[in-house]
Amino acid sequence: MNNENNLRTFLRLIAWRIVAQWITKEGPKMNMPSINIQIIITLNSMHKGKTMSVQPVEISKAYRLLQVGSTTMISAKYDGVENVMSAAWVGLAGERKVVAYIGTQAFTRQLVEKSGYFVVQIPVVSQMATVLYAGGRSYAEAPDKNDTIPFFYQPEFDLPLVAGCAGWLVCKVMPYPDIQQQHNLFMGDIVAAWSDDRVFRNGHWIFDDAPDELRTVHYVAGGQFYAIGKGSKFDHGPGQD
Amino acid sequence: MNNENNLRTFLRLIAWRIVAQWITKEGPKMNMPSINIQIIITLNSMHKGKTMSVQPVEISKAYRLLQVGSTTMISAKYDGVENVMSAAWVGLAGERKVVAYIGTQAFTRQLVEKSGYFVVQIPVVSQMATVLYAGGRSYAEAPDKNDTIPFFYQPEFDLPLVAGCAGWLVCKVMPYPDIQQQHNLFMGDIVAAWSDDRVFRNGHWIFDDAPDELRTVHYVAGGQFYAIGKGSKFDHGPGQD
Repeated sequence: MNNENNLRTFLRLIAWRIVAQWITKEGPKMNMPSINIQIIITLNSMHKGKTMSVQPVEISKAYRLLQVGSTTMISAKYDGVENVMSAAWVGLAGERKVVAYIGTQAFTRQLVEKSGYFVVQIPVVSQMATVLYAGGRSYAEAPDKNDTIPFFYQPEFDLPLVAGCAGWLVCKVMPYPDIQQQHNLFMGDIVAAWSDDRVFRNGHWIFDDAPDELRTVHYVAGGQFYAIGKGSKFDHGPGQD
Repeated sequence: MNNENNLRTFLRLIAWRIVAQWITKEGPKMNMPSINIQIIITLNSMHKGKTMSVQPVEISKAYRLLQVGSTTMISAKYDGVENVMSAAWVGLAGERKVVAYIGTQAFTRQLVEKSGYFVVQIPVVSQMATVLYAGGRSYAEAPDKNDTIPFFYQPEFDLPLVAGCAGWLVCKVMPYPDIQQQHNLFMGDIVAAWSDDRVFRNGHWIFDDAPDELRTVHYVAGGQFYAIGKGSKFDHGPGQD
């Protein structure tokens, strides 16, 4: 029984390696297949419950999770209903202040409005298909959409976090109803943050020391993502701590 | 005389190649020297007048220049005074709507407020030192700061564009004085855009087909930049045209 479990874990690791290699290594220009939910489920089942490397981030440095400029996912929960959407238009308006565009068609928006909270998470190379999947269907039409996306919870926050991401920022909505209505922009005060400390540690990204499947992903258009690339460090510039 | 010019051009190209190689190829973790204005001047003098590859971008696709999430530079001009600042907190709130954080301490802010226009530009690997340089000193204290940064102009717009960038978006300020005062956020309607068509062509980034020194740069903290990396293309996702 124990051997069977070990074998299963081993095969799972092999499968994960193959998929990760296929995603990250196959030359500069790859054509990905159509959405295959089974692949997404398989990829995400690897992340399920794997939260050992999730560590708290100092709130004063959490903005650095976002400042790299990747595509994000926004999750929220109200009255027992969880949801997650993909969001490219999320940025900063201060070191503790997130600005997130959440369109009126997004089911997640009402969860944010009613609960007063949202989570911005930073997906990575192994989650590109999941980003397209979550962005491509609304909970309103496909309420089973979240069955394929593994959530986990942190103490003190009744908010679903997507397993497998590189970072998570809990944002408390700052009530600016005019800006929400007119511009679909939600301002959020960062009240808690965590990172996968294999790739973001002591307040800094360490992409060049981490596995390539943990690099952030930047969606542009037409199915095209770019992973974050090589680092260059200068001996000056803001944010030295 | 002609030979002398050819030799000069040749030596300039060699020097440019050496600097570009040193910037882009020297292993994954490099420590850059302190700001050396001479290097910045030399690098930027290479860009001066090199606008042959600058081509117009359809306004409906210009948001893709920003959506990759890189660090930007914001320029503006009023009453003959030009300036440029570096800006990490610039994003989108619609396919034609830019949201730019411009702090009260920025000299550029008054040029934007008075002229009603700003330009968001997308700097690249060869401009990292310039980004730190422009971000680290204010025109108010160092009015000669722009002598080292080559501007060029496009017909119909009296706005300085930084030579050597990968993209430029001209934004007309949408007047929301409350949001400007309260959040330091300027909403801009994209009214014109250009790209260096060696790296952004037909409405799409083509990083993997372009020289590495044309990759966008993403500043995080502590002198650390990351260049945009490898692409992955799926056969679905928004923005197919």
